[in-house]
Amino acid sequence: MEPTRNDIEAAAGRIGAHVRRTPVLRLAAGELGFDRPITLKLELLQHAGSFKPRGAFNRILAAMAGAGLPAAGVIAASGGNHGAAVAYAAQRLGLAAEIFVPELTPVAKRARIADFGARLVAGGATYAEALAASRARAAETGALEVHAYDHPAVLAGQGTLARELQAQAPELTHVLVATGGGGLIGGMAAWYRGDAALISVEPEGCPALHDALAAGRPVAAAVGGIAADALGARQVGALMFPLAQAHVAAAILVPDAAIRAAQLVLWQKLRLIAEPGGATALAALLCGAWVPPAAAQIGVVLCGANTDPTGMQT
Amino acid sequence: MEPTRNDIEAAAGRIGAHVRRTPVLRLAAGELGFDRPITLKLELLQHAGSFKPRGAFNRILAAMAGAGLPAAGVIAASGGNHGAAVAYAAQRLGLAAEIFVPELTPVAKRARIADFGARLVAGGATYAEALAASRARAAETGALEVHAYDHPAVLAGQGTLARELQAQAPELTHVLVATGGGGLIGGMAAWYRGDAALISVEPEGCPALHDALAAGRPVAAAVGGIAADALGARQVGALMFPLAQAHVAAAILVPDAAIRAAQLVLWQKLRLIAEPGGATALAALLCGAWVPPAAAQIGVVLCGANTDPTGMQT
Repeated sequence: MEPTRNDIEAAAGRIGAHVRRTPVLRLAAGELGFDRPITLKLELLQHAGSFKPRGAFNRILAAMAGAGLPAAGVIAASGGNHGAAVAYAAQRLGLAAEIFVPELTPVAKRARIADFGARLVAGGATYAEALAASRARAAETGALEVHAYDHPAVLAGQGTLARELQAQAPELTHVLVATGGGGLIGGMAAWYRGDAALISVEPEGCPALHDALAAGRPVAAAVGGIAADALGARQVGALMFPLAQAHVAAAILVPDAAIRAAQLVLWQKLRLIAEPGGATALAALLCGAWVPPAAAQIGVVLCGANTDPTGMQT
Repeated sequence: MEPTRNDIEAAAGRIGAHVRRTPVLRLAAGELGFDRPITLKLELLQHAGSFKPRGAFNRILAAMAGAGLPAAGVIAASGGNHGAAVAYAAQRLGLAAEIFVPELTPVAKRARIADFGARLVAGGATYAEALAASRARAAETGALEVHAYDHPAVLAGQGTLARELQAQAPELTHVLVATGGGGLIGGMAAWYRGDAALISVEPEGCPALHDALAAGRPVAAAVGGIAADALGARQVGALMFPLAQAHVAAAILVPDAAIRAAQLVLWQKLRLIAEPGGATALAALLCGAWVPPAAAQIGVVLCGANTDPTGMQT
């Protein structure tokens, strides 16, 4: 069931008219206070403010091309970014959408979901509760579930980011990616398959992949800290886990203070706004939690910007 | 005295290690509420938050390679972005810098100048007064004046943006550029020389190039509105004016409300923070003040982001 490169090629063709090819920015050694060159993938410029439309469009368009969509449209549970992406995709494709969010979903993400015309539903205290509530609702309405990460079409869609990045920066040997439920890093692993080593970065408060790799299977982990709305899946997806075991070279944890520092550096030095989850991968480099090998060509995915920029100052 | 393409090539070589090659982002028809594709040049990701380091580095490095720099270092007058760029360049090159700013320079720009280690000096009510004060001071200290726009090396440095953009997006037939004193559009005209038509965009409150082209010579114009700190030169430079007469296809004026709307769209749809002057060129497209010909391939330079992002919301 894990996606192949062919699946990702097919996804890229399917979603090409609906997602942005986001640019890369090459930084020289010394920029951002880091002593090596870094290539940033500016995926925070994607539609709906995160990488999530890649998987959402691929899941929905593949279903439309197959059995077709139910009259009730689509339904999803999300900490916010996936919900905004599903709402955006539904709006573009003329579909009804219901999005279940937990209490920790911030105002900026709730507003995006509602602005895209979806029905926003309070779905309990945690993402897991929101998912259960959305599934109960889907059983009533028949709507198509668009899972936030644990579905082959979602993984293949997120994998298009790796396909695009490899074309833009074929020299990269190591790519740092923030991990929540593992849809992005799993999809990227299904593309790179070792062509570049993937470095997973999680907040100390959300160590789902770190703990799963240590245990040898997906296990329930803590959900807390400033990036929990984006990276706070309690447990990584079953589909991504073998890909992570095969192709994730390290699973790094960073403190919230390092994430906040990375957000501030991105604003001060680059005039980019990243949400905490969007700055988490960079944080591992800047705080020294991950030290690249001497010959590494380093890429970092900046994956989300759905946050209130108030508080960013020069 | 106007720069040639060879001068711009030389500038690109001189400053290449000090400025970022900023990426372009291609938007499909319909994005940002505009019915045609647009290629955005993301120059707001440049060092110090605007295009200005291109000209500042070229001016200073050319002087260093020639007669050398005085012990007093460099001095400039600026509404803010040029001052931040000169301060940044001076810090990188180990030089002393004094920056004279008028009263309207916003806090975000004053902070950048000071953070880069320059001496920040209150220079009167307007840019013209700050320039006069900086010249009086330079006569005392012997520091090298780095003019904000009216110097051949500054024009050639800004022209490197056009050289870079043409390489990234050779298909463009029309490029929209915000105009203040005219250093950027003048330098770009010296590169493009008609290969792409340049569309100048100014706020209604700062019509210096619009009025100069109407009068057939640089004339004093009003200075007001929300972009005055960036685009509020009272009069365009003498060096750029013949280039504008030859190569600027239209001089468009936009109301402040259109500039503010363009800033909000950039945040809502792209998660980019632009200052008013940085969103002015885009405003001309979005508000309909400039209507492209049917076959036009449209580029827009987003040229600055030195603003407080508070107030941007989903």
